[in-house]
Amino acid sequence: MGPRDSRKGLVIVYTGDGKGKTSAALGGIIRALGHGFRVKIFQFIKTASRSGEQKTLQNLGVQVEALGKGFTWKSKDIEEDINLAKKGWKEASEDILSGYFDLIVLDELNYVLQYGFLKCEDVLSVLRKKPENLHLIITGRGAPQELVDFADLVTEMKTIKHPYASKGLKAQKGIEY
Amino acid sequence: MGPRDSRKGLVIVYTGDGKGKTSAALGGIIRALGHGFRVKIFQFIKTASRSGEQKTLQNLGVQVEALGKGFTWKSKDIEEDINLAKKGWKEASEDILSGYFDLIVLDELNYVLQYGFLKCEDVLSVLRKKPENLHLIITGRGAPQELVDFADLVTEMKTIKHPYASKGLKAQKGIEY
Repeated sequence: MGPRDSRKGLVIVYTGDGKGKTSAALGGIIRALGHGFRVKIFQFIKTASRSGEQKTLQNLGVQVEALGKGFTWKSKDIEEDINLAKKGWKEASEDILSGYFDLIVLDELNYVLQYGFLKCEDVLSVLRKKPENLHLIITGRGAPQELVDFADLVTEMKTIKHPYASKGLKAQKGIEY
Repeated sequence: MGPRDSRKGLVIVYTGDGKGKTSAALGGIIRALGHGFRVKIFQFIKTASRSGEQKTLQNLGVQVEALGKGFTWKSKDIEEDINLAKKGWKEASEDILSGYFDLIVLDELNYVLQYGFLKCEDVLSVLRKKPENLHLIITGRGAPQELVDFADLVTEMKTIKHPYASKGLKAQKGIEY
């Protein structure tokens, strides 16, 4: 059986304030590649920085679209953020509807929905038309309720303990980025 | 700066009943490899099955030790389970203390601790001696409180919605395994 058998593609949402959301999406990519799936990841917040994850993904032949310019609390220009999100979503929509991919990851999409850079209804109207066998993994804190209602699987990553809060450690290379 | 700079290696625990624990650990591997880290994963429950994740990890040059024979509710021989866990932990301990690795993943270790196949105290006595810069990621539901107390970072993966419960779907290739 090949990877493109008729199957039910799942819409998976990783949300919550805890660490592990993007990591879990990246792990999903590892599994998918092992089955020969065609995979693409859109990163709505991250910049193209040759981060650890971007290097390994590119080495694996995964298409990585880093759409962001970093988290927007640093932003001086909210219009630019909105335009970047819209441009990214246009491209993602085309890939979602193309029928080419088996798994598409929409990293930090929840974040741009929460901040209103994209309208949830505009996103859902594309997701409703997605090919039956396409898996989607959507990450970011603050997943809107309408997206939770639409999704097949939703996990909340909940912080039980976090070192940067409790011990004042800096973000660690190879673990956080 | 190389990957083996002086740094604080974190002990990260992914627990809870939700999907994403092993996936998050696999994602951690993707990041670590991008920084040139030396990585090994012990899978305490999974068998060597050339699953999607095992194929991709081996292609990436990650050492994968699949120690298990599947989840033990299928088990007929609990003594064998205990012996496998002990044998696996002996090997993992040696690698943890070796100073060679930058990241070691102990997948489903919580599970074997919860079932008493390994004593939490025996595990912690090794973890307390780990090299300063070694990162550890430990997964599985039911993390013992002593391990949570010892860890630097703990995330609970909490099920908000699960398709196999709510819609009776089968586990999906490339997503669940």
